Amino acid sequence: METTIGVGLLGLGTVGCGVVKILQSPKGRNPLVSKINLKRVAIKNLQKKRNLSLDSSIFTDDPLKVVEDPSVQVVVEVMGGLEPARSLILRAISLGKSVVTANKAVIARYGEEIAEAAKNNGVYVLIEAAVGGGIPIIEPLKQSLGGNQIRKVSGIINGTTNYILSRMAKEGVSYQNVLEEAQKLGYAEADPAADVEGLDAADKIAILSSLAFGGSVSRSDISTTGINKLQSRDIEYASRLGYSIKLLAIAENLEDSENSGNSSIPLALWVEPTLVPTHHPLAGVNDVNNAILIEGDPIGEVMFYGPGAGAGPTASAVVADILNIAGISTLTTAKNGVDPLLSSASWRDCHLVNTNRIIQKNYLRLITKDSPGVIGQIGSLFGENNVSIQSIVQFDATNSQAEIVVITHKVNKGSMKDSLNKIQQLSEVKSLEAHLGCL
Amino acid sequence: METTIGVGLLGLGTVGCGVVKILQSPKGRNPLVSKINLKRVAIKNLQKKRNLSLDSSIFTDDPLKVVEDPSVQVVVEVMGGLEPARSLILRAISLGKSVVTANKAVIARYGEEIAEAAKNNGVYVLIEAAVGGGIPIIEPLKQSLGGNQIRKVSGIINGTTNYILSRMAKEGVSYQNVLEEAQKLGYAEADPAADVEGLDAADKIAILSSLAFGGSVSRSDISTTGINKLQSRDIEYASRLGYSIKLLAIAENLEDSENSGNSSIPLALWVEPTLVPTHHPLAGVNDVNNAILIEGDPIGEVMFYGPGAGAGPTASAVVADILNIAGISTLTTAKNGVDPLLSSASWRDCHLVNTNRIIQKNYLRLITKDSPGVIGQIGSLFGENNVSIQSIVQFDATNSQAEIVVITHKVNKGSMKDSLNKIQQLSEVKSLEAHLGCL
Repeated sequence: METTIGVGLLGLGTVGCGVVKILQSPKGRNPLVSKINLKRVAIKNLQKKRNLSLDSSIFTDDPLKVVEDPSVQVVVEVMGGLEPARSLILRAISLGKSVVTANKAVIARYGEEIAEAAKNNGVYVLIEAAVGGGIPIIEPLKQSLGGNQIRKVSGIINGTTNYILSRMAKEGVSYQNVLEEAQKLGYAEADPAADVEGLDAADKIAILSSLAFGGSVSRSDISTTGINKLQSRDIEYASRLGYSIKLLAIAENLEDSENSGNSSIPLALWVEPTLVPTHHPLAGVNDVNNAILIEGDPIGEVMFYGPGAGAGPTASAVVADILNIAGISTLTTAKNGVDPLLSSASWRDCHLVNTNRIIQKNYLRLITKDSPGVIGQIGSLFGENNVSIQSIVQFDATNSQAEIVVITHKVNKGSMKDSLNKIQQLSEVKSLEAHLGCL
Repeated sequence: METTIGVGLLGLGTVGCGVVKILQSPKGRNPLVSKINLKRVAIKNLQKKRNLSLDSSIFTDDPLKVVEDPSVQVVVEVMGGLEPARSLILRAISLGKSVVTANKAVIARYGEEIAEAAKNNGVYVLIEAAVGGGIPIIEPLKQSLGGNQIRKVSGIINGTTNYILSRMAKEGVSYQNVLEEAQKLGYAEADPAADVEGLDAADKIAILSSLAFGGSVSRSDISTTGINKLQSRDIEYASRLGYSIKLLAIAENLEDSENSGNSSIPLALWVEPTLVPTHHPLAGVNDVNNAILIEGDPIGEVMFYGPGAGAGPTASAVVADILNIAGISTLTTAKNGVDPLLSSASWRDCHLVNTNRIIQKNYLRLITKDSPGVIGQIGSLFGENNVSIQSIVQFDATNSQAEIVVITHKVNKGSMKDSLNKIQQLSEVKSLEAHLGCL
């Protein structure tokens, strides 16, 4: 390793600064870190004071200058947003430069286009920082688990919502209260929609799914329910029944249960607040931590756990990707070959099944009349519609009305919807107050 | 990827068979799996019937024939034991062949010699299967966490002892009873010493440490205490105080607390039954599962969790390593360069500090006379010796004797030993029944 590798940085926010700090203090890190040379940095405001010792001559407010600088071999995109990020990534690729990005929104939407361009140009686009902050998950999925048939990926992959849910569970307070505090503390954005409506988690599960199953699906068709309508009452009842409520993002291969004759792989992807049994490894994941559980054959189950966000952890993931490119660049031949394991090109077709075919347990909370036969009626109606019940519990009865919580066995969402329509037509049933998933 | 890669297998036990099964069913796995060709297999007994569809012409009872077969580019050693495994690995390397091995005993003892030989011959020796069964941990440590200064690695890395401890905790039964049942069920060997005395965990933490800190230490100097003297009484008391007891293997960088002027990095490595607070991520790791927690800067804490043993998970790790070599072999130039991230050559000097300088909390159980002043006396004596106490609890008092459990704050093992010598000289103290670590 006598050569160094020139890096250009697009963006110098918290993650960008975290990357610079690692590169400026190589002691105690892998020796390859000292071979990485920061050559050019694009920032929005050239006047802004920064607490970093960087030669001002490397700054520019024109990101294209970074991408096109001949001394820059690897472009690190940590500016965020869809454009100009996407165009800059594609421009870098077209110049034969590898790209490292933390931009889950771009990769979830344009991952296929970008991977195809990278393949054609013999470069890498590495995205470890796009999912799970500092947790190594992209690299293990691509390399360490490559011998497995992956069946399912499920995870807590949004730190903001997990923080809110953890505090709601611990303190018994309302969603709105915790959200406001989280915003004050900087754990939630002023506009929290992307997090609390589950959109960020949907971006990330789309990315994990494409790596786990070898092909991408349409991002906009992922069934997504956030936590913004979740009531603390349901967290409390779940807890009494032995469950935590987590915002889970799930991707499942339904190949075995299908007989389509279609060579495209049927996948179910969804994001939903879900009851997780207390003894389940995901149940103990609290605060801003993330965890991703991978199920496959022959591995069984493995889980990756750690800080899902933050400048330091995310910078750790970005630097890991730069190191990977630096390490492998010592081998790259003139013909610009790429290691097929490290490249993230898709290797088969996948498609989303109709949401109605997602199979899972359900948690339901109903307000009913407080009459003796109501539990029997509900139970019978579910039975007639082939929905098996795991438990029915009456939690509260006041003012001549009762609150009933039902946990079903596994059933597809289509049948569940049909049954719920019928249940709600019962004269004894006043309203369906909550409908969540359940592991 | 038009080329295939020829693999030779040394050993066809449960892991070897698991590898063959993956290679024979590439569907749904990374497409690179189908490029791996099993060319030669060394087995002990050519007559033994096997439930695998392999052409008998590829079998030999001479492992050297596998290593030296020109069609074999990667040698997979899953035979176990120190010799001839070590010699065969070195022979393969000298022939310019990369090696994949699950042999933690060989790597913990001869890792440096083997890595040096691999470096000189421009080949890889990959060892994902040597620690944590199927859990991706070696690869993430080398690649995904390379930008970090690692401070500490701690883990539950022996499945047999974790199974025994989990059952002792759940059922309140004795070590001896659970061990006998575990032996009947095949979870423990007929000679359980390597597992229950902590030797296997010590092999594995030696390997993790060398990757985390960049240099190896003397395997034989690792302070190792097993679970074979652990009493179920202590598991019960720990539980009442809010702790689980786990056999932890720990490697810690003590650089910050040292001023040696020595460029070699001072490390503390030890294996010991340790109290883990119930809310700690390692506390919920039960049965034969393993988990490894990595602490570093700027990552913070990440944990890797999964099946620590078994044919399928271990085979998954072996195949991951073969895939890595296959993927990168598409790039390898004539000058036989190696990716420095993927090679596991050490990059700085490390040494073990004297065991007395290991710093941790302690759990102590004492039998004392049942006299009113005894807790005060013990507390004072610890105080005089600069050992701070977190809690002293009297659990039992019968027949004029009392059972007292002390949890200390962090203190080095040397001071702890001195204090314990003095405590045991108190006329009120009858015996020290247990001394464990505590997180």
